[in-house]
Amino acid sequence: MSQVYNKVSAEMLEELKQILGAEYVFTDEATLDRYKTDEEMDPRFFRMPEVVCKPQNAEEIAEVVKLCNKYLVPLVVRGGGSSLNCGSIANFGGIILLMERMNKILEINPDGLYLIAEAGARTIDIQKLANQNGLLYAGDPCSAESCQIGGNLATNAGGNKAVRYGVTRHQVYGFEMVTPTGEIVELGGRLKKCSTGYCMDQLVIGSEGTLGIITKVTLKLQPLPPHKVDILAIFTDPLKAVSIVPALNKAGINPTSVEYMDNPNVKTTSQFLEFDGAPYWDNGIYVIMSIEAFSEDELDLKLEQVNDICEGCGAIDVLEADERIWNMRRNCWESVRLVSLVATTDDLVVPVDKIGEAMEYIVDLVARYPFPLRINAHIGDGNLHIVLCKMDLSDEEWEEKLNSFTEEVYTYAYSIGGRLSGEHGIGSRKAHFMERFTPPAELELMRKIKKAWDPNLILAPGNVFNA
Amino acid sequence: MSQVYNKVSAEMLEELKQILGAEYVFTDEATLDRYKTDEEMDPRFFRMPEVVCKPQNAEEIAEVVKLCNKYLVPLVVRGGGSSLNCGSIANFGGIILLMERMNKILEINPDGLYLIAEAGARTIDIQKLANQNGLLYAGDPCSAESCQIGGNLATNAGGNKAVRYGVTRHQVYGFEMVTPTGEIVELGGRLKKCSTGYCMDQLVIGSEGTLGIITKVTLKLQPLPPHKVDILAIFTDPLKAVSIVPALNKAGINPTSVEYMDNPNVKTTSQFLEFDGAPYWDNGIYVIMSIEAFSEDELDLKLEQVNDICEGCGAIDVLEADERIWNMRRNCWESVRLVSLVATTDDLVVPVDKIGEAMEYIVDLVARYPFPLRINAHIGDGNLHIVLCKMDLSDEEWEEKLNSFTEEVYTYAYSIGGRLSGEHGIGSRKAHFMERFTPPAELELMRKIKKAWDPNLILAPGNVFNA
Repeated sequence: MSQVYNKVSAEMLEELKQILGAEYVFTDEATLDRYKTDEEMDPRFFRMPEVVCKPQNAEEIAEVVKLCNKYLVPLVVRGGGSSLNCGSIANFGGIILLMERMNKILEINPDGLYLIAEAGARTIDIQKLANQNGLLYAGDPCSAESCQIGGNLATNAGGNKAVRYGVTRHQVYGFEMVTPTGEIVELGGRLKKCSTGYCMDQLVIGSEGTLGIITKVTLKLQPLPPHKVDILAIFTDPLKAVSIVPALNKAGINPTSVEYMDNPNVKTTSQFLEFDGAPYWDNGIYVIMSIEAFSEDELDLKLEQVNDICEGCGAIDVLEADERIWNMRRNCWESVRLVSLVATTDDLVVPVDKIGEAMEYIVDLVARYPFPLRINAHIGDGNLHIVLCKMDLSDEEWEEKLNSFTEEVYTYAYSIGGRLSGEHGIGSRKAHFMERFTPPAELELMRKIKKAWDPNLILAPGNVFNA
Repeated sequence: MSQVYNKVSAEMLEELKQILGAEYVFTDEATLDRYKTDEEMDPRFFRMPEVVCKPQNAEEIAEVVKLCNKYLVPLVVRGGGSSLNCGSIANFGGIILLMERMNKILEINPDGLYLIAEAGARTIDIQKLANQNGLLYAGDPCSAESCQIGGNLATNAGGNKAVRYGVTRHQVYGFEMVTPTGEIVELGGRLKKCSTGYCMDQLVIGSEGTLGIITKVTLKLQPLPPHKVDILAIFTDPLKAVSIVPALNKAGINPTSVEYMDNPNVKTTSQFLEFDGAPYWDNGIYVIMSIEAFSEDELDLKLEQVNDICEGCGAIDVLEADERIWNMRRNCWESVRLVSLVATTDDLVVPVDKIGEAMEYIVDLVARYPFPLRINAHIGDGNLHIVLCKMDLSDEEWEEKLNSFTEEVYTYAYSIGGRLSGEHGIGSRKAHFMERFTPPAELELMRKIKKAWDPNLILAPGNVFNA
């Protein structure tokens, strides 16, 4: 599946300016340079776009898409630019579309429990507005402060509340989208159930900008549980720590979060945050749980049960967690720099009941490699963030060993029903792994949809599929 | 989107017998006649298949699909045959594929909270096995005794537990499927979150046999809440009755069911079931709620809240409901025959907060028509079953007025964000309405997927789309 694209011509640029207004079309070096990457730090992945532009509505975007088809120029949408897998890089040059002018929250309806926003609205603004109305928007990626809701849909973002509420695809009633050929359509609907034709909304969610440009979203809101407690259970044995997940599930506790930090993470984050009083910092593995309830009695009941479950699973202590503990969890990745200037984080997902087995495998595997490992995880979801540290390895050795480790760990993950990404997406960074690990017949079905909807392969080429 | 199909030739029949074994390939008149329809009673929709066959595994089905492509013969899968919209009729002749030999439950894993079954397993057998293990399979279509799990996925079946647990698409981890060109693929996965390529599992669920033949499913199981109470709230004003839904939602009660019967339904079902003691049978509107909990204390708490909510919404009485009340609810459709030998039921779905408005509209509208109306509804889902009775109208008048009413009511429903079907699907019966009410650009996206995956239009032609 490949395409030979044209460069943006003077003629096309002129037409672009007519559609958007010249002040919203950028070709200056400084702007292009700013958008050559997203969160990606490795210059090997940087690509300079030819044009950056800022549309103000779906109609303008539809015109731009038609123009790109006419001139055979690729188009990549960039939301908050917080992709960890090169999801918003102009891999083949062409145009980067910024959504920042389409950042309005258009409606909140507390009775109907929904909210409508333009795709460029910041996730945190949506969360805050819901909270101000006594409600909850349950999508909660760690990048909520910088990311945009359209990008959350495009990558099917996960985050900290997924155990109870599900991931982004479960928070969406429907959306407006510009198709790869420049039509404006509405997919999904504000319905609790529907058996009326193909479920294309869920197909587009998580397709990383390759099947359409999301322009407006209708989101589900939840009643905000008025009572909440965070619990920190301390373990010394990783397998005992993860055994808490099935125990919570079977008891119907329905926790909001079940997060895991291994002891290297506990040590480094407490040091990084200069938090002297971190409990059991020298040998503790942390499992952090959030429990929500609609009445104090319900909360008390659940807390009692959770306490019993933790002790039954072998916790050496059970404490109430405060904001400082959550701060440690949030800084797992940032604090790695204390140990190694260069490091990688991965985003493997496995069946929830296999997470203990997977951790054991990974710990055994990494013992054969010359780099230290640390694991933090959304264990309630089976989503493992494996952090590997380069330390003082040479560039060559690091790259070679890292490739070999990655190959081994993905092979293992697929053998137990896991996948490459739980919440970060494939982007262009993992596209070759997608090719390598997806059964050919399944990949072919994806390609057929892509080609049927986007015959000129205009949208986000290089994402998801090898170009 | 149309195709000229061939008749099943002697040569093709011979190859079919080689694939399946001659004893599983039927061409006798009695068998063909038996499968000319599903639940559909109107002979205008009956179509005789040319062959009926019973494969035993995915590999055989894949061979049959390849054969159909080779000879250009259509293929329709039939599960339990409980479609209410002509979903399993051989609209263009060809082959009917019965799944009854593929009825095994292959695995139940109470720790991993999942179950694996062949697509022809009966839904009720899956429910029962889950219950025997102290667990819940939450898919619960009213036809559970006769329908098959593969058919539940194909139509995205709804049912009585959808308020709390969602519809069939929310109960599925993944499945094995034969593609329209005869490849065997696995879609989805036993994962709580995944951002690894296109979400094709949700696309196929609800596609009514047009995008693939589901052969094996992996289902989610839930912990079975050990405490449960059913409540019957009696109203005399329909708008007050439906106002209970947002009130329950906002309080975070998370009921399992919220069902509605208007007074004509209460009267007729109590008469039909010879249930003399039906409370408020002469003027009551019933709202039946199921409340589940994991502890007695939690249940008590919720019951107190529900009681307050019912009274706040204007219930004239609140009682505990027993099996006799549920039996009335289940017999709404059956009991209509006491009133009229011919009747229709529809399956409109609207946004949950618009259900009161929709009921008012329908009641006003039907006043201009010469037939009586009765409404039963999954009000917690916004899903209305509108029942119209022919009474002693002539066939011509009935058909003419019914068409006119349907046109008006669908036009209204779409104007408030509703859709044609909440849980029954489109089948071939509603395909022309699908064409009429779906925006052309959206329909075109569906057609593109269909053509890309099924270039010869072999699978279930006439379903979903006008052929």
